[in-house]
Parts: sequence; C-alpha cells; structure tokens
Amino acid sequence: MNEEFTPRPEDHFTFGLWTVGNPGRDPFGHEVRPQLDPVESVHRLAELGAYGVNFHDDDLVPPGSSAAERDAIVARFRAALDQTGLRVPMATTNLFSRPVFKDGAFTANDPEVRRFALRKTFRAIDLGAELGAETYVMWGGREGVEADAAKDARVALDRYKEAVDLCCEHIRDRGHGLRIALEPKPNEPRGDLFLPTVGHALAFINELEWPDMVGLNPEFAHETMSGLSFHHGVAQALWHDKLFHIDLNAQRIGKFDQDFRFGSEGIRDAFYTVRLLEDAGWEGMRHFDAHPYRTEDPEGVWDFARGCMRSYLILKAKAERMRSDPEIQAALRAAQADRLAEPTGTLAEIRASSPDEPTLATQGYAHERLDQLVTELLMGVR
Amino acid sequence: MNEEFTPRPEDHFTFGLWTVGNPGRDPFGHEVRPQLDPVESVHRLAELGAYGVNFHDDDLVPPGSSAAERDAIVARFRAALDQTGLRVPMATTNLFSRPVFKDGAFTANDPEVRRFALRKTFRAIDLGAELGAETYVMWGGREGVEADAAKDARVALDRYKEAVDLCCEHIRDRGHGLRIALEPKPNEPRGDLFLPTVGHALAFINELEWPDMVGLNPEFAHETMSGLSFHHGVAQALWHDKLFHIDLNAQRIGKFDQDFRFGSEGIRDAFYTVRLLEDAGWEGMRHFDAHPYRTEDPEGVWDFARGCMRSYLILKAKAERMRSDPEIQAALRAAQADRLAEPTGTLAEIRASSPDEPTLATQGYAHERLDQLVTELLMGVR
Amino acid sequence: MNEEFTPRPEDHFTFGLWTVGNPGRDPFGHEVRPQLDPVESVHRLAELGAYGVNFHDDDLVPPGSSAAERDAIVARFRAALDQTGLRVPMATTNLFSRPVFKDGAFTANDPEVRRFALRKTFRAIDLGAELGAETYVMWGGREGVEADAAKDARVALDRYKEAVDLCCEHIRDRGHGLRIALEPKPNEPRGDLFLPTVGHALAFINELEWPDMVGLNPEFAHETMSGLSFHHGVAQALWHDKLFHIDLNAQRIGKFDQDFRFGSEGIRDAFYTVRLLEDAGWEGMRHFDAHPYRTEDPEGVWDFARGCMRSYLILKAKAERMRSDPEIQAALRAAQADRLAEPTGTLAEIRASSPDEPTLATQGYAHERLDQLVTELLMGVR
Amino acid sequence: MNEEFTPRPEDHFTFGLWTVGNPGRDPFGHEVRPQLDPVESVHRLAELGAYGVNFHDDDLVPPGSSAAERDAIVARFRAALDQTGLRVPMATTNLFSRPVFKDGAFTANDPEVRRFALRKTFRAIDLGAELGAETYVMWGGREGVEADAAKDARVALDRYKEAVDLCCEHIRDRGHGLRIALEPKPNEPRGDLFLPTVGHALAFINELEWPDMVGLNPEFAHETMSGLSFHHGVAQALWHDKLFHIDLNAQRIGKFDQDFRFGSEGIRDAFYTVRLLEDAGWEGMRHFDAHPYRTEDPEGVWDFARGCMRSYLILKAKAERMRSDPEIQAALRAAQADRLAEPTGTLAEIRASSPDEPTLATQGYAHERLDQLVTELLMGVR
Repeated sequence: MNEEFTPRPEDHFTFGLWTVGNPGRDPFGHEVRPQLDPVESVHRLAELGAYGVNFHDDDLVPPGSSAAERDAIVARFRAALDQTGLRVPMATTNLFSRPVFKDGAFTANDPEVRRFALRKTFRAIDLGAELGAETYVMWGGREGVEADAAKDARVALDRYKEAVDLCCEHIRDRGHGLRIALEPKPNEPRGDLFLPTVGHALAFINELEWPDMVGLNPEFAHETMSGLSFHHGVAQALWHDKLFHIDLNAQRIGKFDQDFRFGSEGIRDAFYTVRLLEDAGWEGMRHFDAHPYRTEDPEGVWDFARGCMRSYLILKAKAERMRSDPEIQAALRAAQADRLAEPTGTLAEIRASSPDEPTLATQGYAHERLDQLVTELLMGVR
Repeated sequence: MNEEFTPRPEDHFTFGLWTVGNPGRDPFGHEVRPQLDPVESVHRLAELGAYGVNFHDDDLVPPGSSAAERDAIVARFRAALDQTGLRVPMATTNLFSRPVFKDGAFTANDPEVRRFALRKTFRAIDLGAELGAETYVMWGGREGVEADAAKDARVALDRYKEAVDLCCEHIRDRGHGLRIALEPKPNEPRGDLFLPTVGHALAFINELEWPDMVGLNPEFAHETMSGLSFHHGVAQALWHDKLFHIDLNAQRIGKFDQDFRFGSEGIRDAFYTVRLLEDAGWEGMRHFDAHPYRTEDPEGVWDFARGCMRSYLILKAKAERMRSDPEIQAALRAAQADRLAEPTGTLAEIRASSPDEPTLATQGYAHERLDQLVTELLMGVR
Repeated sequence: MNEEFTPRPEDHFTFGLWTVGNPGRDPFGHEVRPQLDPVESVHRLAELGAYGVNFHDDDLVPPGSSAAERDAIVARFRAALDQTGLRVPMATTNLFSRPVFKDGAFTANDPEVRRFALRKTFRAIDLGAELGAETYVMWGGREGVEADAAKDARVALDRYKEAVDLCCEHIRDRGHGLRIALEPKPNEPRGDLFLPTVGHALAFINELEWPDMVGLNPEFAHETMSGLSFHHGVAQALWHDKLFHIDLNAQRIGKFDQDFRFGSEGIRDAFYTVRLLEDAGWEGMRHFDAHPYRTEDPEGVWDFARGCMRSYLILKAKAERMRSDPEIQAALRAAQADRLAEPTGTLAEIRASSPDEPTLATQGYAHERLDQLVTELLMGVR
Repeated sequence: MNEEFTPRPEDHFTFGLWTVGNPGRDPFGHEVRPQLDPVESVHRLAELGAYGVNFHDDDLVPPGSSAAERDAIVARFRAALDQTGLRVPMATTNLFSRPVFKDGAFTANDPEVRRFALRKTFRAIDLGAELGAETYVMWGGREGVEADAAKDARVALDRYKEAVDLCCEHIRDRGHGLRIALEPKPNEPRGDLFLPTVGHALAFINELEWPDMVGLNPEFAHETMSGLSFHHGVAQALWHDKLFHIDLNAQRIGKFDQDFRFGSEGIRDAFYTVRLLEDAGWEGMRHFDAHPYRTEDPEGVWDFARGCMRSYLILKAKAERMRSDPEIQAALRAAQADRLAEPTGTLAEIRASSPDEPTLATQGYAHERLDQLVTELLMGVR
C-alpha cells in the first residue's frame, strides 16, 4: 500500500477499546471473535500509528471488580500506555448494557435508577481523569422510549439537564480538567431517543448550568441514519464553537446502526467532513467509532483499523489538492462561492438597494461542472 | 358525521391560502384544479369553523402587481375578513418559487440576490402586519445545496443569522408587533437544507441579535421525513419556550414532502402531538400546512379542510379521555411515569446514596400494557 | 378489557417460541428476562387463546444436544401440546446465530458451510414434520453482504436456488407434507440481503425446480423498513397465489428491525393488512413475529402477546363494519372503486373507443372524503 | 479534462429529451431554463459523443398537435437524427402529467380513462417504432394510491396485466419489433405505486400473456429511494434474463426523487453497477435518466450530460483495473469469492457429508481488507 497514507501519532487518530475489541455479536448472532485484551489493543494500535485509545468504564474494568482488581487492571493498562506512548484522550460510561438501565439512565422514571447511573458516571469520570482524558463523552443509549405515554419528553429534558449539571458539578468539585461532549443519536436501541441530532443537543446545551463545559461529539452514522448531512451538522457545531470530539465511521441512510469502517460507504460525505475539519484547522481527536465486519477473524480487526486511518489520510490529501486545483478554483469562482462571505449590508443599505430580478434570475452557477470536478478528484482522475 | 367534532373559531384552526388553494401541480403533473379566489377561501373556511387564514405575499398579491392593484387586492381581502370574522394570525414570504432564488435567498452566494430576498421579505412583513398578523414564518426553501463544494455551511449560517437579524431590525424599526417563527426542513427542494430540524433551528436562535423575537414553527411532515419523533421535537421547542406556531399535516418517513391531511397517516404520532399541545395549555394557532390529494375536484378541497380539523378534535377528545381513564392512569403509575418529575437529588445526596442494582434491574415497567391501552383508546374501543 | 376481542383458537393466531421467549438482548444491551421454558410458553399461549406455536430448531433443542436429549425434549414438548391442544403449524431453522454462518448459509462462499447449513435445515425440516408443521419458513438472515466485491449476486442466486431445490427434494424424498415459505428482508444483520422484498422472492420462485412447493412469508416489519406498503406486498403475494404464511408485528420506516407488538405502530397499515386477509378469505396462520419491549418483566410478555391478538380482532371488526357502513360505501362508489374490476375491453374495442379527455380530466374522485371516513372508523368515532 | 474518458457512440450512452430538456420546475419552483428545441438536443448530444436520444410522446409532439403538425415535427426531428447519426433506441409515453391521469392510467378506476391511456400508448408505440426504437419503456407514474381504500391492489394488478397484454397485442398486431421494459418505482408522485421494485415487476411479468416480450428498466434512483441495493436488483434482473434497459442517475436513500447526475452521489453503488454491466457483457443502452440541477443555465445542461458519461467511463476503467489488480485478486481469493460458483452437491452427497463446524466457524474472510482495497481503487490511489 501507498506509504504516503501511513498514519502517525500527530494525525490524532484514536479508537475505542470497544471498537477493535468488538467480538461481533449482533441482534441475530453470537460472538465470532474472542475477547481482546485491552493491553493488546494498546500495543497493536500504537504499532499502526494511532495517537490514542478511549474506553467505557466497563470496557476496561469489568463490572463487579473489587477495588484491588480495578487498581491492578488500571496499573497494567497504564503501563502499556507508558510503554507505547499511546494516550487516553477521551473516556465514557456504559449506561446502556445492563438491565438496570432498561427504562433509561439519566431519564429513567425511577429516581433510584438515576442515582445509580450518576454514581456510575462519577466513577467513570474519575477513572478517565486518572488516565489523563480531556473529554468525557455522554451517549444516552437508553434515554428514550417506545411506549410514548410512559415519558413526558419535556420532563425527561428536565432530568437530562439535571444529570449533566450534576456531572459538571462533580467535575468542578473534583478539580478535573474534563469537558463533556454529548453524542446525539435518533434511535436504536430505543424507538426514539432524546437529543436525536446535533441540533437538538446544541440547543439543549444553552439551558445548562455550565454551558461552557459542554459541547458535542457528533457521529457520522448517527446523523446519517436520519438522512441528515453529517458535514452540515459538524459545520453547525463548529459555528457554535461546540465541536469537542468527533466519531467517524460509515453508514447508509435509513438502516440499523452499521458503524462501518470510515470511508467504506459515503465517500463523498466522508470527504466533505474531512475537508471541513482540515479547513477549519480543528485540533481535536479523529476518533473512529466503528467496528469490524462480523466476517473478520482477529487479524481482520487490524485491517479494519488501518483502513479507517488510511481513508482519512487519502481524503485529507484530496482536500489539499482541491485548494490548489486551478479548474476547481475557477469553478468555485463561477459559483460565486467566495462571495458568500460578503456581508449583505445594513438595513438602510438594503432598503436603498435596487437589485434587478431579471438579471439575477438568468445567471447560472455552474454547479454541475463544479460537482463533477470534485467527483473526479474523489475518483482520483485529476 | 358526529356533531361533537365540529370545529369552532375558538379551536384556533388556521389554513394557508396555498393549502386549500393548491391547484394540484406536482413534479410529474400539471394543475388539476382552477385557481381559487382568496376571497372564496376566506368565506369557505369561515363557514367550516376555522379561526384564521395565512398567506405568502405572492399568494395574495401576484408578483408584478402595481401599488394600486396591491391596495385593491388587500382591501377586497380585508373586506372578506371583516365580513366573516376570519383572522390573519400569520404571514410569510415566498422565497423559493422564482428563478432568482435558485441558489438560495438569505444564503445565496450573490449578495444582490440576498438583498432582493430581504427587500421582498420586508414588504411581506409589512403586508402581514397591515393585516394583523402576529407571527411571521420563515421557511428557507432554497437555503441549501446539492453541490456541497459551492457553499461553506458555516458561512451560510453567518448569512442566515445576518438576514434574520435584519428582519428583526426591520420589524423593530417599523414598530410591528410581529414575532418570527423559523420552519426547519431537512431537504426538498434542495438536496440538503440548512437548519434541517427543530433542534438545529433552536440552537441557531441562540446566536441571534434579538433571540427573544424568534422561535419555531415545526412541521409534522418535515420532522417526520427524517424519521424523527415529531412530538418529541415539539416538546423540546416547548421546553425552550420557543413554540411560536405549528404546522400540522401527515407524512410517511423517508418520502417526498407529502403534506397529507392531518391525521391521515401516523394516527399515533398525531395523537401524541395533540395531547402535548393540549396538556401544555399551548395557546398558539393550530395551522394545517397540508394540501388536498391531486384526485380531488374543487369540492374535495373542503372535505380535506374539514377532515384536518375533525381529526384534531377527535384526538383532543381522546387526550381528555386518557386523563380520566382509570386503567390507563393505573398503567402510567406502574410505569412510574409520575416519578420522572421527582428531582434526583443534590450532588452530596447522590454521592451518599446506595441504589441496589439487582432490585432495580428486575423491576418491570409494564409498557406493553400501557401502550396497548393507549392503542385501544386510539382505536376507539375504550 | 372488552370481551368482544378475546382471541380463540379458531382465529388462528400463532407465536414463535423466540417471540414470547425473547430475553431482551439487543445490540447495546444484555438479557433482561430469564430463559422461558418452551413448555411454559405452550401453556400460557393456550390460556390466552392462541392456536399454535412455532419454533426454530435451536429454540426447542439446544445445539449440541445428544439424540436422547433431543428426544426427551421433543417428547416433553409434545406432551404440552397434547395437553393444551396447541398446534405447531410452522417450523424453521436458525441459520444466522452461530459463527459458522458469518459469511452466509445457503450463499456462503465456502461450499462446506453450505453443506453444514443444508444438513441443519434437513434436520429442522424433519423435526417440524414430526411435530405436524405444514409450513417451513426460510429466512436467510445471513444471505447477504457488506463488502460487495466478495459476492457476485447472480452467483449467489444460483446457490440460493440450488439450496431451496435441495430442500424441496429432501421434503419430497422424505414424504413430508410441508410447503416452504420464503421470508424476504432488505437488510440487517447484513448490509444488504438477497431477496430483499416480497417482489424479489416471488420472482425467484419462478426459477425453482418445484415452484408449486414454495411461496412467501411476508413480514410487516421487513417490508416497512424499506418504506414499501406492506399490504400492497401481501396483495401481490395473494395475486400470485403465493401467500403461504404471514408475520405480523409493527415497525417504523427506515429504522432497525423493531418487531414491535402488532398494531402499536402503523394502525392504518395494520388495518389494511387485516382487511385484505379477511376480505380475501385467506385461511393461513396469523403469526406474530414480534417481541416484547425490553422494559418488560416476565408478566409483561403476556400483555404483549394478548395485545397482538386483541389488535387484530379490533381491526377485523372494523373491516367488517366498513363493509356495512353506508357512508363509506357511498364514498367508495364516488371513487368508482367498484369499477376497477370492469375489464377495459379488447384491442379492437379500445382502438374503436373515443374517450373524452376534457370530461374525464375534470371528474373528482372524492378520496379525501373516503379516506377521512376510514380514518374516523379507525379512531372508533363511527 | 482527461481525454481517456471522452464518450464515443460505441459506449451506447443515451439521454431522454426530458433530461437535458428539463426546464428546472420542481414542486416549489418555477422553470429556470427556456424550452430546449429537441433538434438542438440531438445536435448537442451527438457532439458530446452520445449514441442515442429517447423521448416520451409529449416531449417531441406537443399534445393537441394536428396530424400535419405531428408529421412535420417528426420529419424535422428525423432529419436531425440522420444528420448526426444519433439513434432513438427507446420510446415511452407520458401517462402522468395531464389531469386525466390523476387517478391512474392503466389502473384508473374509470375504464374510460384506461382506454384513453391505452390509446395514447398505442400511438406512442407507433411513433417510437417509426423512429426505430427497439425498447418501449413503461413507467406507471400514476399507478398507485394515497387513499388505500380506493383501490384493491389485487384488482389493480389485474388491470395492469390487462393493459400490458393489450400493448403486447398491439405491438404484435402492428408487426413492430419492440420489446417492453417495465420501470418500477416505490412512490412519488403517488403515496404508493404498484410494482414498487425490480422484484415486484419481475414477478408480475410471469403472469403476462407474452412474458418473453416484457422485461425491466431498473432505475438507480428508484431502487435507491427505498434503500435497496441497486446493483443487487440489476443482478437479479440479469439472472432472470430480463434486463432490457437501464436508467442511470444518482440519489440519496429516503428522499424525494432526485435524479442527480450519474456518479454524483453513491460512487460505490455506481461502481458496482458499472462493474456488473461490464462483467456481464450486457449490450443494452446506458441511459441517463437524470436532470441538471436547478442552479444551471443552458450551458450547465451540457456539463451535466458530459459528467454522466465521464463518470461511467471512469468507473468502467476501474472495473477493468480491478480484474488485473493482484492484491485485489488475492483478497478475493481470501474471501473465497471464486468458490461461490462451486456447486454444493447432490442431496445424497450433502446427506453423506460431515462438515466440521468448529473449523468453519473460526475461518475469517478478510472482507475488511478486500473492501478497503476496492475503496482505494475507487479513490484512485491504486
């Protein structure tokens, strides 16, 4: 394979333990791969050129571990990090797998379940901070409903806000340096989830006690499931200065949560996402929240990880090429793309202006030419 | 038909001139019904028990009318309103039909097009205010893109904000009492539209110059196209105190914008929407932004209008019945629905709590029973 | 609850062991309910008024059971059937859960996997026949692909045909009275599945060696996932005389495979399906291939089962009422619904005819009125 | 642009008059481009290297033309064909635009409408034959329903069959050499259309009087709207030997009918479609049933047309490269792709076989590696 696209730590690629460690269980099938030792994941990811590794509390420390067991696990994991130089930029909590969360975690009807969820989250935050994480991701996998009568969505938002505020308070109280990144998703495993899109989560943040501490972790698959433009969502998060983290993978619209290898579906959408991040000079982690096909044996897992990173780098090179391609730049000017940044004028200026509709109506924008040039760039023939 | 469900003005039902006046043109077919005189619409809607009628500038005053023609049209329309008692609670601008808007209106790349769009909007705002409208709806039908390279979505949001701020400034400058309601839509007629969902629009408002003047006009069809829960979206708008207006119709997920008669598709979703509005004591207009099937002759139009209002009233009666149905109320208690309003506790209380996971994990929430009872309520057998 | 809608065996309602026995595992969560003894399922279903129970081989006889264990399990199960009078009208094979099937079963690239799958199917066919099943359902849960290059779809269809032909040959050779019903599904768990819809499976049957032995088992959720009209699909299966079995449940378009309680989502679609089956006098099994929400404890399972059957009976009563409702019947005549059965004429007659376009173009079909009347019937206010 | 991808007549690219001639009207907007003279389209398409041009009757001969006008139009059009060498390989009828068809054409409830539709079709068939067309496409744009009660889908299929049989009879009676290609579509402009997918249409053909005369015209956008794999659908049509024609364009899942430039969306799906057609040695027309973005002026139309053809040729070159790429070929062998063609064995052989599940269960198929190699081929970095 082309050496140009070999990942290096400075590319800031990260993976979750649950991604490369995914054993291949799905709603209709059993595990196909053995449990992967987190320490092995650390070593393999480091060899492949990743920058970091992320985890849910339960990925690293099995539920029910004693304090001594926990400490031993953490020490062994930290040793692997130290040895490889791999970082833990992000941590999160599993609030969805265990039966206690079947009616939700932060928005469970029973306050005792909510307290259980918050206590688990506090511990996971502490664990993340202990391992150096700077971002704490919140995906509310069970915060939703099928039997709509069971939950007033307005009250559920009250509880959701209360929980995020409490987590912020815990972080401040402990003096951790963590910021929280909310991860929206429209549905699955619940019929409908609260905070279903980037937009809903951005709006929600404005009602929080410490809105500056909270931003977004948009996921390619989650926005794409609803048929929304992922890179538009990311752009709006950037516009609000709220892109704290990002989950890259691949997904077809209107399907189950596929979490495919980044770049494998939706090359065009992947490209515009990479281009946006690079053009914006965004410095966060490029996290791959995907998992290998169930057809893979243990070696296929690493082909999967390598492929995610390579596709990012290939698309990044195309984004650079786009900036210097004279025909594309000419087509952008024909589309007046640069003029979008021109202010429209003051109220008085606009009132006094006299735009000529017939002239404006006949001008063309040459988007077909522009789009074809980009398509050919994506296909590597220019 | 059952007299109990006969609409009255105090139900606050409104229709757009473009809804009952829709001539049945679609992407594959010509008009099937003759132009409907706005004055006839006023009379027919009043007879059916509607409260008001809304319009786009071009619906009432054809583009190209002289000032004298405009005044004559408006005077005749106002006379019909006076005669019938029908109100004009909302007005809006058509920024999507004419070729000048093919690259967008407020987010057009060419600033001259943006000025044209703003000037047209200012005039429509003045016309709406003249006829007593309290809400001005903004649907950005062309604010989007197919050839993604042609528009940087972040800069487009800058322009969108600039335009909404200018409209607010115009309203304040003129001393109108109008509030603005943004209407999100994910796509169609553009490949992707900016502000695609209720959430994205709610977040956007927070960046405006006069955020208090701007709220939302969510539409059943627009959120449903993306597979999002419409009543969850409306609930979040209410939670932010931003539900300024609502567009009711019917739609199947993942299809073209169908704008079917309210209640005709998605009885369950329609019910939870009506129940939410009624439970919240929301006092805004119940606007039907739908159009008759293309199979209808001119009389079918009024069957369509009558059906929208009847379905609302039928579902409203069911929402009332739900509050008094002892089995449903018992099922809600079994689901602990009332306990969602209980605060979870302070940080100290939660840290000191000791929830028992095994007990919590085994409790059931009886959602199957609850949901079946509601389904039977919807089907009218309880 | 209303006694009128109490199921009885003559209603021909059936459930799979895997439906009421579903322990609530999903892609993001562990089991929430204990294993349910198949014998208990038989007793509970009989008490609720079901006619029969269906199973996958592995549901009844755990993989790895010895011949003696198998016989003991089957004898105990048969005793429960005898005691309750419950029947086993259908059987099927699990060709998707075990890792051996990760690349497919009948369309696996490795012929040895295909032989394994066929041998497992032959045994399941024999088990089904032993317990009196008349229909053998084939759902090819792994017959598909994510990495499209890995399988030529045309060759996969060759293998699929070969496998179904071999199963027919086995049935004939053994003298079983079974017919095969193919169950289409568009995707999940594979990225794309072969024979994705009712239509694709109907077409496929025409290429088989013994097409008369093979028909369809359409599933509400599977067609609805793709946004297709389920009752249109069932109607086409009936039109080809190929409706051998049916799977009833509920599903929202463009989502993961939800398998909700029949009637809970899509009341309108459920109604038209029930009406079609009843109007057609179709005598097959009304099988509920759904599972309880994960929020349910063991008792909720039976609320779920009861609800599926009640909703069917409620909708059946509405279908009957529709036939006798004079306003609906008048609206059907206004829509000329009865005239669709009138032949159009011979070639000569048509050539000689002189239809008058202007007259035909202006006639209305009053679908708004008709549809509203049906909607009100569904909501129980007529 | 790269000369290698310049289209030539032997590539068999065709366009409809309605594609390049699309004036840009959509459900929310007026025409943006002037009417295009069919004769100009012929000249421009010939210059660009197309092989042929197709049309609906009304595209060429405006409704209401006298016989003399018709003949003059046809003579002028034919002269342009003769001059340029462009062919008319396909013709079709517009059975959807005029109000007379609002309740359907071949499945209209009123038999007089059906006769009108058939007479119009007979004339269009004769016109197509006169201009040398070999394929007659049938897209039933209004053959469907919103108010489901209005049409029994089984009876509608009776009428659909009757109409197709009558068209075949007309063709035979006139001695035309035409074959009919049915074009499936799931919805739009009707709520649901009959024969919604490739599969449903393939099955339907088996019930016709002259099934050999009838095949399919699958369209990329139409299958993709439902989220089905287009190339799987085309593969099944080929498998049944029923691929008579193909409509190439681009579309995002779960949206309105976009008809974008081929290759612009879904590069991967477009590639597998091209590869399938080329690998199968399929000799039919590569027809682009797309239209330019509404942002285009008259020159943009030809950028659009050029882009469709270039993308096909670029993807065709990649399909060729795939056959000779040693790493991809090795990955295909690792996936055992070639072994799918191996027969599974006779019933006796399978019964006698003893596949070893544990061994089969652990083997991996290296799809991640294979898929990444193909992705890199698509992105032009190998």
